[in-house]
Parts: sequence; structure tokens; C-alpha cells
Amino acid sequence: MSSSADIPASLILSRRDLEFLLYEWLDVESLTQRKRFAEHSRETFDAVLELSEQIAVKHFAPHNKKADANEPRVGDDGKVVLIPEVEKALQVFTEAGLIAGQFDESLGGMQLPTTVSKASLAWFQAANTGTATYPFLTIGNANLLIEYGGEDLIDRYVRPMLEGRFHGTMCLSEPGAGSSLAYITTKATPRDDGTYSVTGTKMWISGGDHELGENIVHLVLAKLPDAPAGVKGISLFVVPKYLVNEDGSLGERNDVSLVGLNHKMGYRGTTNTLLAFGEKGGATGYLVGEPHKGLAYMFKMMNEARIGVGMGATALGYTGYLHSLAYARERTQGRPVGDKDPAAPQVPIVDHPDVRRMLLAQKAYAEGGLALGLYCSRLVDEQITGEPDAAERAGFLLDVLTPIAKAWPSQWCLEANNLAIQVHGGYGYTRDYNVEQFYRDNRLNPIHEGTNGIQGLDLLGRKVVAQNGRGLQLLVEAITTTLDASTGEYAEALRAAVNRLVEVTGTVWSQGDPDLALANSTAYLEATGHLVVAWLWLEQLNAVGDKTGAFYDGKRAAAQYFFRYELPKVGPQFDLVASLDRTLLDLDPSVL
Amino acid sequence: MSSSADIPASLILSRRDLEFLLYEWLDVESLTQRKRFAEHSRETFDAVLELSEQIAVKHFAPHNKKADANEPRVGDDGKVVLIPEVEKALQVFTEAGLIAGQFDESLGGMQLPTTVSKASLAWFQAANTGTATYPFLTIGNANLLIEYGGEDLIDRYVRPMLEGRFHGTMCLSEPGAGSSLAYITTKATPRDDGTYSVTGTKMWISGGDHELGENIVHLVLAKLPDAPAGVKGISLFVVPKYLVNEDGSLGERNDVSLVGLNHKMGYRGTTNTLLAFGEKGGATGYLVGEPHKGLAYMFKMMNEARIGVGMGATALGYTGYLHSLAYARERTQGRPVGDKDPAAPQVPIVDHPDVRRMLLAQKAYAEGGLALGLYCSRLVDEQITGEPDAAERAGFLLDVLTPIAKAWPSQWCLEANNLAIQVHGGYGYTRDYNVEQFYRDNRLNPIHEGTNGIQGLDLLGRKVVAQNGRGLQLLVEAITTTLDASTGEYAEALRAAVNRLVEVTGTVWSQGDPDLALANSTAYLEATGHLVVAWLWLEQLNAVGDKTGAFYDGKRAAAQYFFRYELPKVGPQFDLVASLDRTLLDLDPSVL
Repeated sequence: MSSSADIPASLILSRRDLEFLLYEWLDVESLTQRKRFAEHSRETFDAVLELSEQIAVKHFAPHNKKADANEPRVGDDGKVVLIPEVEKALQVFTEAGLIAGQFDESLGGMQLPTTVSKASLAWFQAANTGTATYPFLTIGNANLLIEYGGEDLIDRYVRPMLEGRFHGTMCLSEPGAGSSLAYITTKATPRDDGTYSVTGTKMWISGGDHELGENIVHLVLAKLPDAPAGVKGISLFVVPKYLVNEDGSLGERNDVSLVGLNHKMGYRGTTNTLLAFGEKGGATGYLVGEPHKGLAYMFKMMNEARIGVGMGATALGYTGYLHSLAYARERTQGRPVGDKDPAAPQVPIVDHPDVRRMLLAQKAYAEGGLALGLYCSRLVDEQITGEPDAAERAGFLLDVLTPIAKAWPSQWCLEANNLAIQVHGGYGYTRDYNVEQFYRDNRLNPIHEGTNGIQGLDLLGRKVVAQNGRGLQLLVEAITTTLDASTGEYAEALRAAVNRLVEVTGTVWSQGDPDLALANSTAYLEATGHLVVAWLWLEQLNAVGDKTGAFYDGKRAAAQYFFRYELPKVGPQFDLVASLDRTLLDLDPSVL
Repeated sequence: MSSSADIPASLILSRRDLEFLLYEWLDVESLTQRKRFAEHSRETFDAVLELSEQIAVKHFAPHNKKADANEPRVGDDGKVVLIPEVEKALQVFTEAGLIAGQFDESLGGMQLPTTVSKASLAWFQAANTGTATYPFLTIGNANLLIEYGGEDLIDRYVRPMLEGRFHGTMCLSEPGAGSSLAYITTKATPRDDGTYSVTGTKMWISGGDHELGENIVHLVLAKLPDAPAGVKGISLFVVPKYLVNEDGSLGERNDVSLVGLNHKMGYRGTTNTLLAFGEKGGATGYLVGEPHKGLAYMFKMMNEARIGVGMGATALGYTGYLHSLAYARERTQGRPVGDKDPAAPQVPIVDHPDVRRMLLAQKAYAEGGLALGLYCSRLVDEQITGEPDAAERAGFLLDVLTPIAKAWPSQWCLEANNLAIQVHGGYGYTRDYNVEQFYRDNRLNPIHEGTNGIQGLDLLGRKVVAQNGRGLQLLVEAITTTLDASTGEYAEALRAAVNRLVEVTGTVWSQGDPDLALANSTAYLEATGHLVVAWLWLEQLNAVGDKTGAFYDGKRAAAQYFFRYELPKVGPQFDLVASLDRTLLDLDPSVL
């Protein structure tokens, strides 16, 4: 029963689908021929995936509901109280080496391909997104510091993070500056000893305070006294909760304090905080890299985080699908339309066409989202280990796909969760079942790490036009490669949609008016996202080929659903974008 | 600030819009020329609307959040505990006469037109849907008993309900029979004294138990011993919580017991219960009307309830829109795309095109839903007081529109609430603001009173084909009348969509295969719903005419949004339906 606290792996994620995507489609095994991954093999990949599945089932899924019902609170001593299962789960996760899965062996990591690492992490996102977020933030933080932080910061902060002793955050937003980081007011003043005095307030900081581990490493965007206005004047600082001595031992408490916890609709297992830096005079911070380059560094982490948000949304969509599928198979209700015998027994609701629609839609969204996230991860691997030319192309394509990888699953896998509730009927609306929590948890994803509206501006305003349109060109080339290996109804529909994408993008930018070009960027993002996922469904079908069996027939059915029910939606959206409609631009807001 | 507990009328509903719809569009004043409403005038209507607004602001809105945070619980004495504000609010509501607004003067009612009564009630649905549900259930219950119950049941149960002393419920679903009422197992055995012994379990009973008022009047579907199988064997019974003596005084406790309260995602202010009838031998029930006709009677109430659900969804969409509009006007963030000066001050987010999109969409959905609900209510008035021919046509058109009036707002005004959160960014995801509750509350509406999937089957499988397609014909005639009075881009688009609707309906039913015809009934429902709301937007525009001012310009802007951004979505949906796609029918569910 899907309402039970014991949630089997089969309701969390599909091992078979992960294997299909990794080995039958993305050919991750071939990566073991590259130097960075030479120590690995299909066996080591499988071992990591199996271990992830086991830990997710045993240590993450069981307290997902409890963490939701017992959200973090501030205790009498001012410390944040979480349910004890969170710390235990993170301990097991870290001891299994999963926090350092993708990191260099020199840092104690497993040096796994990103593709395998993200597949492994998806188990935790699907089992318990609230608890999984803590190590995810830490991984992103560590990744940034490894790239830009220098040896001292790596030794003092990254190593303890990868040992699970320290946790990480990213502190970008402020009460008056969320989407518009140019307007942050947090200040960093240089001190004589080379450190900085950081003062300001940071908002929406996930994992911003708790008693997990020994320390919290905040990555804080702030402005130096001589900073130019806008995003070009933002620098990045490490501001630890506790100072760290040269020998690695903890020093005194830094001037960082918890102002309050946010109380959210979902995602309750993760603390989300308002933090004050420097209330007692100034928090000690350490500059990361060069002055005024903080936003660029942060975007390194942010782009990873955006793909991570998409994967998280997908994971919730996936587990919701599996829950509602199990329910639809066991719940009997009604008869087929054609059966007029009132004495006939009731049938499982999976027999009703409209329930099938809701299940196929969820499958198409969840498996499509997983394909998208893993494809992007595979591009990361190519960027890191490919031949220079291929690596550069992979990086560019990844740039174009990032806003889609964030926004598409956070829109459609939220819709999947909506459908999972609907399949359950009234039961799905109760907290006795799990699907309502998935829906509440997933509702965060269209908001954080850049709202979906921002992703639309990023895609149409930056990514497809970068380097004279090379981003779009690479995307079209990649899709065309797939089309050249495909025939039939789906390929034809996709080819027409791609041609339309190119045409519409040209139309939009032919006017020399950025405001007009971007007025309908969300419709552009949604249409392009559906087109990209249709492409990845065709890719999956090509990997299926003529293989037989229920699993492959399931892929065929979901692809058929996507091409017949979903892809046609892009027509009116591209028409709208191409019409350069001025409804939004010309609106006088006083009439609202 | 929209996070405050004091919520002004301007954040709940728009008095101006109600006046426009009632007086400038639906010409409700003309109803005062009819005998039933002869005592009324614009002044009495306005007085009711103003009183509703005041009571909603003063007694319903202030505890909406508190009721959500303190859901009903079972106390140590086994009694249901609600926050005290609920009883107080209902007392004021009843004392103002609002519970009996639409009822006959002979029953102590105000004999208001349904259109005015529903407009009045919308204030309460928007201010506090959880508390408003109690009197709404009572009104529906009373309405049914007045029509089918006979004098004794009216005197014993309806009068106390309309005095606010008794409350009402409807008990249809059972744990094994939700959407499929044919399979209910609750039994009613005749006793020698003319009463019935009722035994069985009823699920999802809103208002099923509480200590508000003196008594609860359950309307229970059950089967007599000789009942034929299926829906033709269902009878309807009054089963009170406390028996009522002939003199109206309360007798002993009936054999009805609370098994448990459901814990829901939203809509928490309303108790929702599992009830056991006859655990101690048999609950005493009184047959309503004739045996085996219970479902037909219940559907009288159900059809009203469906329009009520749509209005409730609309009301939540409306208040969410007003909250997010107020937020978008005060929250500053970022600069226009074209402004490259990093030192320029931030602008209110209502200036950003994508925020405008989210506001216009909400406005188009909420005002469109309100137009739809009030149009249906106007049809009820026509059905009750029109000339015989007009009354019959109104009844038929109402039948066709009912599944749309239920499903369309519950889909699109939920989406409006989704957008209201998005406009608020991270703030909207916190429980400090109101919009996340609207979203959780509204998620119930696509489920109860017949899931939206059921509405699709009802529309395409019954309503449009009834009496050789007379339902569809009447709808097309009504739309054509509007089109004949319209010109321009919108009329052209709507005319094309209506032609397509007729064509597609013909195609679907030309195959003589009901399973195939209904395989894509949800897409048909969604497309027809959008078409109907486009029609009502055109109707509103015709009522606007060439009037000037911000209010009318707002109507023009929302209509423009709906015709440019929304109506085009129906194209691919009608194409899908017309293709008689077999994806859902032919699916082998074992491949999922």
C-alpha cells in the first residue's frame, strides 16, 4: 500500500530505467576508456547505483514523511532542531563515499563520471528531497571552491565537507534582492590581516543553520567598498559559521546569526533561513578568487544547481508516477464504458483510458526529465574528459540546455505530481498517502535557483544568441543527427518543430528590439523545452530499436503519448512568439 | 501587506466586477419584473452584496489561516473540536439571513435570484472556503429536501437548517465506491414503523461531524433489500445525527458514529469524515421520495454542487489574483530588459512582461470563471422563472455547461493560484503569505463532486449527445447569437473554434464505438471549456462596448490575453480528439 511508511525501491525510482539510460542509451561504459575514469567499469558503476538504492530505501525514504510533519524549529537554546533521522541518514551517505562520488581521488573522491554520480544521487532526491538537499548543497559548494578557491580554502573547508564533517551553503539572495542580484547590499571590507569583514542579511538560505556536523561553510556574495555598480561589482567570500584554525581545528563562533527559519508549503525537511552577517561588528570572510568576479564563480555552481533542481523535480515526478501506478493497479472502481452489466465486478482503475492518460503523461514527463538530466550530465563528462573540440561543443550545448533542464522538469514533473494526486482521487489529497507531499515539495522547484521566468529570459536572451547563435546551431545539429537516424511520424513532427524553432528565433531577433524579442520568452522556453524532450524521446526510441519486452514497449508507449499528446502543444506557442505579440509590453498595469 | 491577518475586501473579491457581471452584462435587474423576484430591486441586491462583503471581511477572512493551521481534531470526549471562530462566523452568516438567501419567503428565505445569491456566496468562498463549506452543504441539502422530501421532512429538517440550528451533509461515497456509486453497499431495511434501518460506511463526508449547531442532517444513498443492481437500485434517506421528535425537539442519538477525520493537504477548515451507520444495530433513516430514485434526487443537489465547486475554485483563483497583483505593485526587483544602467533603481515587478503574463492569466481565469459561474446561475433563474420554452432551453443549456462549470475553474483557477505563488517568488512558497494556502485548498476542486475525468465523460458521453445532440445545438446557438453581435479578430477565432467543436463531436460519434468516442474525453472537455470561456469573454467585451475607464480597459486586456494566449491551445486538443487516437485504449498496462 502506498500509504505505508516502508517504501520499497520500486516506488522510488526505476533501476531498470537508469540502466537503460546509462548503458543502452548514453553508453556510459565507454567513458571507462578515458583516463579520468580508467579505474571504473560497469561493475563499479552498478555497485554505486545499487548502494545508493539501498541507502535511499533504508535511510532516506522512511523519514521523508516524518520530516515533513516535524519541520525544523528553533529550540530554547537558539539552536535548530531537526528530527534525528536526518543526521543518521547523512552519516550513512557520507560513509558510503557518496558525497565525494564525482570528486578527484586526490580529495578522497570516487572520481565517478558525473552521469553516474547524478543517477546515484537521483535515488536520494526521489526518496527524500528534504534530507538529500543538505549534501547536495555541500557538493555544489565544494565543487566551486575546488575550481576557484585555492589550496588553503580547499584544505580548510573542502576536505572536511567531503568527509561529511562540514556542510555548505550558497548565500546569494537578500530581502530586497532575489532575482536581481545586481542590487545586493551585503558589504565586505578588507582588514589588515587579509580577511574581510562581512556585513549584511541573506535570505532563503537553505541549510543556513542546523547542528548537523561540526561547521557550516557559507559562500557569500558581497560587495567590496570600491565595487562598481551592478553585477560586475560582486565578489565571493567563504564565511564559516565557526572559524577554522590553521591546523584545521575549530576556532571561535563567527559573527553569523540565525534571524529566523522560513515556514514553507513543502520541502520542509530542509532548513531555510534568514541569516545576519556581522551583527556584532563583522563576520570574518575569505575572498574566493579575484575581486568582482564572484557572480561568475557562483554561476559555475548555479548552473550545476539548476540541472540539480531539474533532476530533483524529475525525481519527485518519478516517485509520484510509481506511487500512482501501483495505486491504479490495485484500486478497483467502475466498469469499462462499453460494459453495461451493472452486476459486473469493478475493474482496476488502470483500465480506464483517462487514468491511463494520467499515468502515461507522468511516465513521459518523469522519464523524459530523467533523460534530459542525464544527457546534460553526460555533456558535463564530455566537457571534462572529451577531446578539446568535442569538449568545447559539449560545454556550449550544455549552456543552451541548462535553462531547459531546470525549467522543464520543474514545470512538468510538478504537473506529474498533480496527476499522481488525481489518480489517487480523494485519497491522494490526504496526508495518509505520499503524493500530496511530492506535489508540495516539487512546487519549490519552479521558484528557486532562478525562477522559470528567468530561465526563459536566459534561454532566449542569452543562450540561443551567444556567439552569433552558435548555441542554437549546436542544438539543432544535435537534433538533426538524431533525425538523420530516424524515420516515421515522430521524426517528421520533430523536424517540423525544429525548423519552426529556428524560424521563430530568427523572427524574434530580427526586429532589433530586445524588449519585444523577450516579451514572450516564457512561451519560447516552454515550446523549446517540449521540443527538446521530444527529441530525447526519439533518442530513447532509437536506443530501444527493435528490442522486445515489456520495458521497451513501455518506452514505446510513453514516446507515442509524448508525440501525440504533448509535442503538438508547441504549435500555438511558437505562433505566439513569432507574432511578436505586444499584449504584455503594452499593458497599462493600472487597469489590472 | 498581503501577509497580514487583516485582509481587506480589495484582496478578496472585486465588488466592481460583480456589479459589472450582474448589472451590465447579465441584466439581473430585469429579473425584478418577474413575479418571484418582484419584491426585489437593485437596492436590495446591492444591500445583500454589501452585507456579504462586510461579513466575509469581518468574520470569515480573519480566521482562514488559523483554521488551516489548526485543523479539526477529535477531542478526548470523542467530539470534534474546531477553532471557535467558525461557529461565530456561521452565526453571523445565518443571522444575516444569507443561508436562506435563495429560498422561498414561506421558508423564511429572501427569495433572491440564484445569480445574486451565488454572487453573494462567492465572497465567503473567497474569504474562507473551509468555513464557507458548512452552510453551502446545508443549503444544497435543504434545496434537495424542499424539492423531493415532502412536508414532514421539510418541517423537521429544512426549517431548522435554514435557521442555522441544523447542518447538512451529503453521503454518497464509500471506501470501495467513490466515482462508481453503482457499487455502494450501504443497506436500508424497512421497519414496521415506516422508518428504515441504515447500515454501512460512508467516506469523504464533508461536515460529517462537528459540534456546530444542534444536529446534522445526513442525506445518505443506500440500497433497499429488493434493489436492482447498479445505479437504478439506489434510494435516498435522511439520517439525522440526533433523532427529531414530532414537536421538533431533539430525541436520542442516532446510530451514526464518527470513525475518523481525514487529514488533508488543504481545505483543512472543513471536517472530512469517515462515518459508520448502524454499528449498534441500525441507524434510523427516512426515505426521501420514492424508492430507487435516490441517485436522480442526489444529482439535483450534485449539479448545483458542481457549479458551486466551480465557483469555489474561481473564488480562490480570484483572491489569489488580487493578492499577487497587490504584491507585484509593491515589490521592486530588477530593471527593464532594455535598461542597461546598473545604478538605475529597481522597478515594481508588475513592470516585467512575464509578471504581467502571470497576472493577466490569473485575471482571465478568475474573471472568466466568475462569468461562467454566474452565467450558469442566471440559467437557473431562467429555468425557475422564465417562460416555459425559455425555461426548458435554459435547463438544457445548463446541463451541457455543468461539467464545464465544475471542471474548467477547478483546473484553471488552480493554475491561477500556481501563478499567484510564482509572482510572489520564494515568499509565495512560505506560510507567512496567503497564496500557498489557496493553492492547497483549491487542489481539492478537481477531485470532489465528480473528478474532472468524470466531467469529461459526462460532457462528451451524455450532455452533448442528449436528445439527439440538442445540448450541443443549444450551446452553439447561444454562442452564435453572441458572434452575430460581434466582429473582429476574436469573433473570427471563436467562430472557427465552434465550427471545429461541432465537426469534432460529429467525428467522434460517427464510429458507433463509445469506448473509442470517449477515449480522449478529457481533451474534449478541456478544449470545449476554453472555447466556452472565450465565448464568455466575448460576451463581456460586448457588455463593455465603448465604455471608457480603467475597469473596462482591464476587461479588454484580459480578453486580449485570453484570445491570443489561451484560445489557440484548443487547436491541438480538438485535433487529438478528431484523430480518434487509440493510444490510451490500446495500451497494455503491464508495460507501464
